[in-house]
Amino acid sequence: MIQQRLRDHGFPVGRLPTGSRNCITDVADVRVGHITLREPDKGICTGVTAILPHGGNPFRVKSTAASHVINGFGKTTGLVQVEELGTLESPLLLTNTFGVPAATEGALRWLMERDPSIGDSAGSVNVVTAECNDGWLNDLRGLHVRPGHAFRAIECARGDRRSEEGSIGAGTGMICFGWKGGIGTSSRRITTERGVGHIGVLTLTNFGRPEDLTILGVPMDRIAPETMESPPDGSVIIVLATDLPMDARQLKRVARRSAFGLARTGSFAYHGSGDIVIAFSNARLQPHVPDDSILSAGHLAEDGPLISRCFRAAAEATEEAVYNSLFQTETITGRQGRSIPILPPSAVLERLKEAGLLGRDV
Amino acid sequence: MIQQRLRDHGFPVGRLPTGSRNCITDVADVRVGHITLREPDKGICTGVTAILPHGGNPFRVKSTAASHVINGFGKTTGLVQVEELGTLESPLLLTNTFGVPAATEGALRWLMERDPSIGDSAGSVNVVTAECNDGWLNDLRGLHVRPGHAFRAIECARGDRRSEEGSIGAGTGMICFGWKGGIGTSSRRITTERGVGHIGVLTLTNFGRPEDLTILGVPMDRIAPETMESPPDGSVIIVLATDLPMDARQLKRVARRSAFGLARTGSFAYHGSGDIVIAFSNARLQPHVPDDSILSAGHLAEDGPLISRCFRAAAEATEEAVYNSLFQTETITGRQGRSIPILPPSAVLERLKEAGLLGRDV
Amino acid sequence: MIQQRLRDHGFPVGRLPTGSRNCITDVADVRVGHITLREPDKGICTGVTAILPHGGNPFRVKSTAASHVINGFGKTTGLVQVEELGTLESPLLLTNTFGVPAATEGALRWLMERDPSIGDSAGSVNVVTAECNDGWLNDLRGLHVRPGHAFRAIECARGDRRSEEGSIGAGTGMICFGWKGGIGTSSRRITTERGVGHIGVLTLTNFGRPEDLTILGVPMDRIAPETMESPPDGSVIIVLATDLPMDARQLKRVARRSAFGLARTGSFAYHGSGDIVIAFSNARLQPHVPDDSILSAGHLAEDGPLISRCFRAAAEATEEAVYNSLFQTETITGRQGRSIPILPPSAVLERLKEAGLLGRDV
Amino acid sequence: MIQQRLRDHGFPVGRLPTGSRNCITDVADVRVGHITLREPDKGICTGVTAILPHGGNPFRVKSTAASHVINGFGKTTGLVQVEELGTLESPLLLTNTFGVPAATEGALRWLMERDPSIGDSAGSVNVVTAECNDGWLNDLRGLHVRPGHAFRAIECARGDRRSEEGSIGAGTGMICFGWKGGIGTSSRRITTERGVGHIGVLTLTNFGRPEDLTILGVPMDRIAPETMESPPDGSVIIVLATDLPMDARQLKRVARRSAFGLARTGSFAYHGSGDIVIAFSNARLQPHVPDDSILSAGHLAEDGPLISRCFRAAAEATEEAVYNSLFQTETITGRQGRSIPILPPSAVLERLKEAGLLGRDV
Repeated sequence: MIQQRLRDHGFPVGRLPTGSRNCITDVADVRVGHITLREPDKGICTGVTAILPHGGNPFRVKSTAASHVINGFGKTTGLVQVEELGTLESPLLLTNTFGVPAATEGALRWLMERDPSIGDSAGSVNVVTAECNDGWLNDLRGLHVRPGHAFRAIECARGDRRSEEGSIGAGTGMICFGWKGGIGTSSRRITTERGVGHIGVLTLTNFGRPEDLTILGVPMDRIAPETMESPPDGSVIIVLATDLPMDARQLKRVARRSAFGLARTGSFAYHGSGDIVIAFSNARLQPHVPDDSILSAGHLAEDGPLISRCFRAAAEATEEAVYNSLFQTETITGRQGRSIPILPPSAVLERLKEAGLLGRDV
Repeated sequence: MIQQRLRDHGFPVGRLPTGSRNCITDVADVRVGHITLREPDKGICTGVTAILPHGGNPFRVKSTAASHVINGFGKTTGLVQVEELGTLESPLLLTNTFGVPAATEGALRWLMERDPSIGDSAGSVNVVTAECNDGWLNDLRGLHVRPGHAFRAIECARGDRRSEEGSIGAGTGMICFGWKGGIGTSSRRITTERGVGHIGVLTLTNFGRPEDLTILGVPMDRIAPETMESPPDGSVIIVLATDLPMDARQLKRVARRSAFGLARTGSFAYHGSGDIVIAFSNARLQPHVPDDSILSAGHLAEDGPLISRCFRAAAEATEEAVYNSLFQTETITGRQGRSIPILPPSAVLERLKEAGLLGRDV
Repeated sequence: MIQQRLRDHGFPVGRLPTGSRNCITDVADVRVGHITLREPDKGICTGVTAILPHGGNPFRVKSTAASHVINGFGKTTGLVQVEELGTLESPLLLTNTFGVPAATEGALRWLMERDPSIGDSAGSVNVVTAECNDGWLNDLRGLHVRPGHAFRAIECARGDRRSEEGSIGAGTGMICFGWKGGIGTSSRRITTERGVGHIGVLTLTNFGRPEDLTILGVPMDRIAPETMESPPDGSVIIVLATDLPMDARQLKRVARRSAFGLARTGSFAYHGSGDIVIAFSNARLQPHVPDDSILSAGHLAEDGPLISRCFRAAAEATEEAVYNSLFQTETITGRQGRSIPILPPSAVLERLKEAGLLGRDV
Repeated sequence: MIQQRLRDHGFPVGRLPTGSRNCITDVADVRVGHITLREPDKGICTGVTAILPHGGNPFRVKSTAASHVINGFGKTTGLVQVEELGTLESPLLLTNTFGVPAATEGALRWLMERDPSIGDSAGSVNVVTAECNDGWLNDLRGLHVRPGHAFRAIECARGDRRSEEGSIGAGTGMICFGWKGGIGTSSRRITTERGVGHIGVLTLTNFGRPEDLTILGVPMDRIAPETMESPPDGSVIIVLATDLPMDARQLKRVARRSAFGLARTGSFAYHGSGDIVIAFSNARLQPHVPDDSILSAGHLAEDGPLISRCFRAAAEATEEAVYNSLFQTETITGRQGRSIPILPPSAVLERLKEAGLLGRDV
């Protein structure tokens, strides 16, 4: 059964054109892999998602990177070094909160297997692993994510198609605005005098209160699901990739605009929500061993209109990725028989129609 | 002629209750003063706005404070010390970009006049002055704001009524989404077990592209004004005040949510827009000379629901303050005979009605 | 064989008095535990050190905390949340770079065992694990640190005596200025009108080039050991504890002064050195579930002399802790039969005497 | 009478070679100008120093820049935009604390005079002005620095000789470790495969307690001057220039090492000391209107030894610049007949000799 996204129903998000897949894999050479762990009788409802900045050895050929912490109630690892050096040198892993150590160790093993100098002559490697708390549906205390799962998520990553969305990989047990959340992705195409580039976003959505969801500016409170008792504030991880050349400072500026997209979906970045953006450019690569002491690298001209277009692209793609994470096809049952409802597309479309949106867009 | 705000037309913003004036002066003891400079034949269309954290000597009795830079293309002064010490010890001044030195010197003169020890035995004082660029309507190069204007804006500050809005004080020459912008203010009431507190916001709005304005989630692109040639990106200053006790870290967390309100109005914090939040609490005061080496002070419990409510309040009040800055009554003419149109309330109400909003709210 | 520290030879560091043990355990209720892994034939030369902020459940009763990144070429986890919330809610773990995931998982298991609500009704917990790279002496790729080691390091932590120093726990395989480094600790006593408090420091030293070591201002280049080929830049972790009440902003200010102590030992915080300070106060505790919405807590008066004394204490104790990590008694042999020489105390004392220091201090 | 610097007496600082002048003007194209205001009978003892990143229009051709706040008890302006955009587009001004508004307005007038588009079609310009508090010797409250002084300091800036040091320009009324402080400068030569570059430092020294001064590791407490009553904590501004290509992130990393040089002189960055580093590279210039949307620019390879050498250069040049600010020839009398003693070179040399240093260096 094929999942219909909001845009498939005739509703674009924002003004900029999307990439051909409307997915983070529109960014040249980016790959995504998912390992899903679902054993309802054991309370296992979780997984791992891996994003690879390119098809080569990420340690030997580092991407330029930056992060932005919207609200730091989260356990993402690896950001200290990303901020200092402005580089990403590992696959980027997403998983549940207590799976971070295992996923990090799995990525480490994968890197060591590919590169015998790591941990020996070449020094250490910095793994970035981000997380949301899926403990309402998943047996978090069981530590079911193991290093091998991360290893396999990296191994199965592919860049030749659209990433699956919803309850897959790290998104398996996530909840967003009281509905089933998870993985969502979107992209925007940016045309420059030098050609075409992309900004792609992949979100792991586990945030938002039921009464707050807004789609395309239209409040969805009337169709809000029954509230769980003591709903957790959740979290959201936003991975932003680009094949435009940006330095770390520019990537950070672009990353900060993801919050503007998030705000339009109904987020207030509540206290307990770990909302973190990790951004990288694979069009500004750095070898582990540089061949000269002074290097030259590309970046965006900042006083023209291009960077503001990238800001808008980051916001629009983030907003749409969140919606895409919600348009799912089947209900998930997790630990203790708990289940989370699926956002009903027909009810959403009805609300949009009431707000006069339908005629505009199809 | 009395200005009608969006809420007066039956449209609340968000869910939380406002203070009685729906103004930053709902925060106990906060005062606001405006000096407006308008001489169209000389190209003068600017001013100064002063916000006082309380009615006493702000240097002798410091407020707790924090700032948040949404996009740092701006010339606000004084933030280095605010960030280090977490205190505000001066009136807070708003003016045009090139008026910052004069306004700062004016505040300095006012402080020195009140306190002979400043600059002598008591050391220096840190003045916070923020700005937007009103150079399209105002003769920026003429440096028409002088220290005396800031001095008088401080002197005339009052806390016993709602601040005027629109083209007044620092807001005189500002432009927002292609319409006449300026000063707007709003507040939210926060009830705790200890009583009632407020979060109040005053915005100086000079940002946004005509096609981007969104009111209550409804795009206003259909009624957008004719675009100026090469529209500047502008800026927005957000002053957030509270009479709830918060430490500097908490104030910074709350301040960061103003961007979530801004996003809902159509902002993407474009490259050239200096978008800065300055927050203070006058319910956590510090004497210049403490009477003990270890002090005790109040702050919010962070693991209860209260701080998330403050987050929402900051976003809602910021969003509404921006709208309020746009609901004005008369057109302004500035330098070279230039003028900026007023957002027509009737067209806005029509659009909201088309989006099905009217029935909900009145 | 009893290790003599620099101070035992008659050389104080700085001006402030030390605590009675001149150790981080002078800070009331702080505990330290070490697990050492040494199997030279297998190339194992590493360990885990645990610092507990107090004797209770660190999740239920959180300490106030802050961090400061001197140079971010490091893999420390948990700092995102420490920075956002200003709290430490776990034991603090130190280990080798690739042992971070295992040590983190070990701490997580220990916390879950003590508190069945963690990962269930109480949400997640943030573990802070810091590291240095001991890969010259230790088989880093073997991932010999396992969760159980961290668990046991926490279990064996004691506060009733001076922590051991040198090649123990996480310090087992570390190298500092070309000499054997590892764990070093020191403290300073701070007397206020309210009584006596302490600032204690524990360092994990793995930094510095042989020619750069300076002790009490006297360059030790003349006695520098033979340089290893391509010496790695190493790292240093500085844990700063206090039983004085400080808020997170104040702790961060104090933490930043550790770099001033480090500089006096000969550090330039070279590119590859991950130099990170983690600071906490156990005199400003926060319950996991607060009993009121507005709380009161102590902090230092910042305009008196007290905070500058704390700045000096942080610098002095850091400087002395580094020296203490170097005054060891036996040589270590690590992987591939490699060994690192011990700093010879007699040569140091001779250099100090040449610099005219001996007469001053004994 | 020619001033002898420490190095002239046979004492080098650190290991790296200096530039030919051992001055910030060794950095190609950098210019320095001073305006000194001394009227003892009126209590005027202050001035303005201007540093120009190059000989052209700094607004049209922007330098790459970064800042680092060691301790933020200071009133430096312009850093918000420097941090966001990574550029310096104005002369850099130094003056007394209350002279900041006037000096900023003076620089603004100078920029507007050179460029009629500023404040009109070209938008605003960001002026960076830093300060220390000279209020012990100077009548701070008199606001004697006026815009014209800054204008003239910029106009008289020269790059073809060594900058004067000591009680000149902004340094006129400054106090350092209880001795007369002021302007000091130093540089280091960095040889790369691409040729020779420099890191130059100019300090405005107004910090330090008499008992804390350390020169080349040797405590100078025995020769400390009589303490002023209630000595203020002062401040220090460090301007770091380079003609090596660095991006803003790299400049910030280098700037942070100035604190390591400062620490070696006896600084603890006490509470009231506003210690701020502003760094720029004029080998990575950006036009105000870029001619393409994607640009290419040089930066240092970060994984080779070059950047650590730059770190050391920043620390060494900062340390030496502080010493140079202290080696002066005549006493200054300021307001109320106050005067500050000159550090006596003979006493310093005697102390160095006692510490066994003389033989090493001459």
